Amino acid sequence: MNHTLDDAAWELLFRQARSHNRWLDTPVAPELLTELYELMKLGPTSANGSPARLVFIRSAEARARLVPLMSPGNRDKVAQAPVTVLIGYDKGFFEQLPQLFPHNPTAREPFAANAALAEATAFRNSSLQGAYLMLAARGLGLDCGPMSGFDAAAVNAVFFGPEQFPGQHVVVNFICNIGHGDASGLFPRHPRLPFDAACRVL
Amino acid sequence: MNHTLDDAAWELLFRQARSHNRWLDTPVAPELLTELYELMKLGPTSANGSPARLVFIRSAEARARLVPLMSPGNRDKVAQAPVTVLIGYDKGFFEQLPQLFPHNPTAREPFAANAALAEATAFRNSSLQGAYLMLAARGLGLDCGPMSGFDAAAVNAVFFGPEQFPGQHVVVNFICNIGHGDASGLFPRHPRLPFDAACRVL
Repeated sequence: MNHTLDDAAWELLFRQARSHNRWLDTPVAPELLTELYELMKLGPTSANGSPARLVFIRSAEARARLVPLMSPGNRDKVAQAPVTVLIGYDKGFFEQLPQLFPHNPTAREPFAANAALAEATAFRNSSLQGAYLMLAARGLGLDCGPMSGFDAAAVNAVFFGPEQFPGQHVVVNFICNIGHGDASGLFPRHPRLPFDAACRVL
Repeated sequence: MNHTLDDAAWELLFRQARSHNRWLDTPVAPELLTELYELMKLGPTSANGSPARLVFIRSAEARARLVPLMSPGNRDKVAQAPVTVLIGYDKGFFEQLPQLFPHNPTAREPFAANAALAEATAFRNSSLQGAYLMLAARGLGLDCGPMSGFDAAAVNAVFFGPEQFPGQHVVVNFICNIGHGDASGLFPRHPRLPFDAACRVL
């Protein structure tokens, strides 16, 4: 392929996109969450391990359980958002490798033998998948508001227990509001590090 | 914004994009690496902490030092790629928060007081930034080949020492070849988890 994205796409994904704090009450169609997953699942992960597990909070009942588990500064944001997605990862993701990486029947073994390697791999790759999710959401016309301030142990107990993901050991990585942002709640964009501060070319 | 990406953009970013193993000798212009950084730097990170540090390997001399530090299965890929980017993170990223998050002069303190929190935050957010980098590269018409098989301690010693990033403590997260992939080296795409296996809606 020799295509590149056009300016409107760059504006949508990066240049005009902002992390939102306040949300309009415009609903998000359930079908859009399926479409979002079908896109973000295609992004690369190590050995196709696909460790991310997602819990989409849509109902008022589930939202009421989540809000008090957020840090105080994040509670209003979550209370107002039409959809909140909990991005977690399965520490035992390698048990799926026989299906996900079928040409190599021994792929699970290094992870099964080394819990620290499995944990780092699941954390890294579910973070990549969380980024794919946010950029795919923006590409679908949605805004995102990622957050890492919450009571992780409580979120795990309430939303990632064995009744949700039987036989897996899922823990939360980060949480992201999704919907249509209220631009009146935005702060000016913060500065980024210039190329010479963050990059070297050898 | 009410825009969404068009089909060609989704093909480019997700649907047709593949992780490449073999590389054409088509060069990558140095200006494209600057353009790549100027896009990926805009993606969201926690408290705008921007922990990723990138080392772009372009010269034959630097590549010759990197190849033997890769796992055997990754050496030919790195030897052949026109550009290889080492995605690292600064464990002391919070020292930049007075510039990056200027409205909150105390933002650095929770990280300065808690090395485990700083480490997890830097690892998570540099992984997000690595994903932004890969999708931005695809959007610029480049292919990616991410890898996590390498001698991390050796990569840190050779490429992320204080002579590269004085006053920082940078370690490698993952490594990604960038260029124009040779599609003849592709395997068929592996299956992904269906929505119902990876997602819950509450």
